[in-house]
Amino acid sequence: MKARIDDTFWNRAIGLARNVILQYQWDALNDNVPGADGSGCLHNFRLAAGLEEGEFHGFVFQDSDLYKWLEAASFALASGSGADLEEKVDEAIALIAKAQEPDGYVNTYFAIKAPESKWANLREAHELYCAGHLIEAAVAHYGATGKKTLLDVAVKLADLIDSVFGHGKSLGYPGHEEVELALVKLAKATGETRYLDLAKHFISQRGSLPSYFDQEKKSLGFTAVWDSSNNPVNLAYHQAHLHPVDQDTAVGHAVRAMYLYSAMADLAAEDDDLLSACKKLYANVTKRQMYITGGVGSTPSGEAFTHDYDLPPDTAYSETCAAIGLMMFAKRMGDVTGEAKYYDTVERALYNGVLSGVSLSGREFFYVNPLSVHPGASNPERSHVKPVRQAWFPCACCPPNLSRTLLSLADYAVRISESAAYVNLFISGEYESGGKKVKIETQYPYSGKVTVTAWGGRFALKIRVPGQSRYQEEFRVWNGEATVLEFDVSPRILFSHPKLSYTRGMAAMCAGPLAYCAEEAGNSDSPDFFRISPDSVFELAETPKEFPAETKAYKTKASKLIYSDSSSLYTQEPPIIEEADLVLVPYHLWGNRGLGDMRVWLALE
Amino acid sequence: MKARIDDTFWNRAIGLARNVILQYQWDALNDNVPGADGSGCLHNFRLAAGLEEGEFHGFVFQDSDLYKWLEAASFALASGSGADLEEKVDEAIALIAKAQEPDGYVNTYFAIKAPESKWANLREAHELYCAGHLIEAAVAHYGATGKKTLLDVAVKLADLIDSVFGHGKSLGYPGHEEVELALVKLAKATGETRYLDLAKHFISQRGSLPSYFDQEKKSLGFTAVWDSSNNPVNLAYHQAHLHPVDQDTAVGHAVRAMYLYSAMADLAAEDDDLLSACKKLYANVTKRQMYITGGVGSTPSGEAFTHDYDLPPDTAYSETCAAIGLMMFAKRMGDVTGEAKYYDTVERALYNGVLSGVSLSGREFFYVNPLSVHPGASNPERSHVKPVRQAWFPCACCPPNLSRTLLSLADYAVRISESAAYVNLFISGEYESGGKKVKIETQYPYSGKVTVTAWGGRFALKIRVPGQSRYQEEFRVWNGEATVLEFDVSPRILFSHPKLSYTRGMAAMCAGPLAYCAEEAGNSDSPDFFRISPDSVFELAETPKEFPAETKAYKTKASKLIYSDSSSLYTQEPPIIEEADLVLVPYHLWGNRGLGDMRVWLALE
Repeated sequence: MKARIDDTFWNRAIGLARNVILQYQWDALNDNVPGADGSGCLHNFRLAAGLEEGEFHGFVFQDSDLYKWLEAASFALASGSGADLEEKVDEAIALIAKAQEPDGYVNTYFAIKAPESKWANLREAHELYCAGHLIEAAVAHYGATGKKTLLDVAVKLADLIDSVFGHGKSLGYPGHEEVELALVKLAKATGETRYLDLAKHFISQRGSLPSYFDQEKKSLGFTAVWDSSNNPVNLAYHQAHLHPVDQDTAVGHAVRAMYLYSAMADLAAEDDDLLSACKKLYANVTKRQMYITGGVGSTPSGEAFTHDYDLPPDTAYSETCAAIGLMMFAKRMGDVTGEAKYYDTVERALYNGVLSGVSLSGREFFYVNPLSVHPGASNPERSHVKPVRQAWFPCACCPPNLSRTLLSLADYAVRISESAAYVNLFISGEYESGGKKVKIETQYPYSGKVTVTAWGGRFALKIRVPGQSRYQEEFRVWNGEATVLEFDVSPRILFSHPKLSYTRGMAAMCAGPLAYCAEEAGNSDSPDFFRISPDSVFELAETPKEFPAETKAYKTKASKLIYSDSSSLYTQEPPIIEEADLVLVPYHLWGNRGLGDMRVWLALE
Repeated sequence: MKARIDDTFWNRAIGLARNVILQYQWDALNDNVPGADGSGCLHNFRLAAGLEEGEFHGFVFQDSDLYKWLEAASFALASGSGADLEEKVDEAIALIAKAQEPDGYVNTYFAIKAPESKWANLREAHELYCAGHLIEAAVAHYGATGKKTLLDVAVKLADLIDSVFGHGKSLGYPGHEEVELALVKLAKATGETRYLDLAKHFISQRGSLPSYFDQEKKSLGFTAVWDSSNNPVNLAYHQAHLHPVDQDTAVGHAVRAMYLYSAMADLAAEDDDLLSACKKLYANVTKRQMYITGGVGSTPSGEAFTHDYDLPPDTAYSETCAAIGLMMFAKRMGDVTGEAKYYDTVERALYNGVLSGVSLSGREFFYVNPLSVHPGASNPERSHVKPVRQAWFPCACCPPNLSRTLLSLADYAVRISESAAYVNLFISGEYESGGKKVKIETQYPYSGKVTVTAWGGRFALKIRVPGQSRYQEEFRVWNGEATVLEFDVSPRILFSHPKLSYTRGMAAMCAGPLAYCAEEAGNSDSPDFFRISPDSVFELAETPKEFPAETKAYKTKASKLIYSDSSSLYTQEPPIIEEADLVLVPYHLWGNRGLGDMRVWLALE
């Protein structure tokens, strides 16, 4: 699909991804960000390519940072970034090619540090994970430029992997899922079904008992990356406790889970059992384990799911990458089923827990996306929650994941098949494929009016009706006719399921796909002191000057608790209740106005 | 002081301590509790005494379990327990004496496992901590029985410690404070001021820089117990970041802090600087870092204080031993200053966060005392919070600490000096010392009427007026005259300081010294669904059949949120509000009626 996005709401973030984040990450990968820890990523590749001498730097999965950057950069090239970027991309690809070993192997950690230990610690060592990101980058680069420079590297690596893994070969599978969905992409890009079979193999082996991971851990060649204990492996952490086809509850590391489920959804069109498992897992995530922001993973301990209905706002992990993973999974579910409802989840994650990951400047990032913050608190159970976005992370997975997502939004917005064009997200722009063209014009999410114009003959134009789990569909010959829909994006108050113990008696405000929050900034005090009525009426408030001009902030009359000064911790003097305005702003913009309390879930009057 | 407690409220818990807990702990120390992990404690002593062969079992501080048991048992002997217990006590003492080395050293861990490493890891190895508990037990045993069997062991050990530590000798001090307050007791019991000087030395060395702990860690003879890193020592964890005399904020491991401050208060009568530091520390704890239950230590991470105004109800640590430590500290502050207010804190801790540590059966214990519980939650940030009391702990500090406290309540209740008798707690019984006698008759805390009768000539009878920071005082010749006071112990609603972010907009109910809580048991649903008015009126509710007959439960008309069933996590359908009774019960009794939600802080209407 060819696409050109020009959207009031998204231009800013996509522009940041294109013009700021990509450059910033390139500098980071090259150890050129003053004040930040060096990534060492390109340095590692130069070592592996024999161009430099020195020591490996960073995590065992450090290579993936470059691959994610390359994927994002390729998307940028596809949508108009120029020669300057392409030069960097080519330079990076040449380096990777040089670091690739004659048999196709490429992974700088093992090349430099442990060449004798290849494939010997699949659970921890992220080799297949890195390979997956290389393959995804290669497919994106090939799609954007038509060049096979990186695709050739990826194919050579994939062929090596195919020669090592499979029935009658190694029965291992990755500790961090990713290569599965990448192999599906590679199969599509090359037409080579072996890669599809390999993806299926990795998925079907997962969950076999006795577990590969436990056997691997006991084998002679095993070298621990982190876990040098003799304990049995926590299989659920890796979604390896059951065969994926038998899984119905999201468990373990949230990003890993989402990547697995995405690959399962990719393969579900031809496998009813997989589709059924995907539907169960999707239902479990979205009906039991998903924050209102689309965040998933309730605990920093293992960056993981905990259990049904456990969604604490203040100790949430809700990693940016996990929300991206949920977008990926839900998109695939929407595409494989043709059902609109899945894109409600894509939208929920995208406009909230994903977009919150990057600051307005594009230079700071959230890894963790809490729903309640008290910046003064240094309480260890909440130490993972940062009250402002950070410049960079030693484990820098979220920023490049964000930019590759922002730069490939078109694929989420519109899908054009043989017989239909699906308008899934409302992002102004032109989308074209196989002679069919769709143009979207809207000020969404701040306006509910969406104009869709279509060209290209007889097909079904299906426009998702948000919140209603359906598409509005028109089947006809299209030749520049416009369809205008008007969705309600006015503020609505939501209540959480009574089993969500931490948000009982509370309410959240959403408008269109945006979850809102109350910040201390722009209000007379911490939002903890305000209580709203279930019948609150919202009117537009002045847009904070730090925010993009199109942003709609809302205010409502709230009850404010006024406590008197006291030197005692506990007093019989009740707070006085006064009426006061409470201003709410889109959640994804929180933390751009200095330190202060924030909360999504507000106490009810 | 001779005392005989016979009190409606306390007889039960003291009886449990005397008749159940002591026997249960004796069995545990002897590895005779079916289903529980063996303590190994007496086994270790038999090894050290050369009576058995085998391996050391348990923690490095395992010996202290026996010493705490001996102290509790001695208090039981002092107040009427008989020959059967005394036989066990004598048996244990004979074993300890046999395990003592010729130079006075006694510690089974080092005797068995690391005789060459004595005193080489003061920070982690708990040698001086164990010594402190041995000394406390010996003083209690001598006081109760007049026998010197254990006191001789303690004196020999204290003399050894005195020969090792001090100016011109080792400048070390314990990683876990305890020996300081024990040495003060030993000095009083023996009249030997060297022990007082040694306690002062340990306290004054603490906080010297460069830190002894950092130097010790780098020294050749150092063997790590837990911390084998090369990191600098977290001095604040040990209250060793500043000289105690310069400390004004409670930091680090809460029990260690409380034991240090207790020793400081012991010495403060003759040291204005120490007294001033104690007052600052006490103010910091009680005005900034103390739960309404008297619990201290907000985090399981290091069982520690966090920072001012950080008192999350759901992730609280609030260890039973720390609340006991706060009782100890506050008692000493009350005694050294003669001010009544400190006993308000003794009472707050005792009736709530201390007493909650033991179940109604006396066979299960809380280590952690949260203010909000959701039993279904297995969220890792809350995994330290147990929804029911546990049979025993590998680190079994709390149960014996509880029993020695319950069996020495008389010392907290009444203090008789040369010129005055202080009635600090309202516990029915007779208290006698130096010819003065005080008799307390009351149904406190469920009735506010207290009758105090005094004999013994001219002295000031000072009766604490709870909550008013003062004593009601009468100075006269006493010869059996009764003074009757009536305190208000009816329910009152309390609000927390506005800086306590987690309890903003909430209220708690207390009646007399008792904090109350709402449990799912006895109510129609989780207390999360109820909201009370700041003007709530409480009336007596039926006493739950599981509770002691004298218990007063209260009920009030509350608003109850009724959520409709929904399969969605988030819905626009607001909960309906209905009037419903909410029953509150004393906090210390929570968790005795099966699994269910509990909360102290209730949402306000």
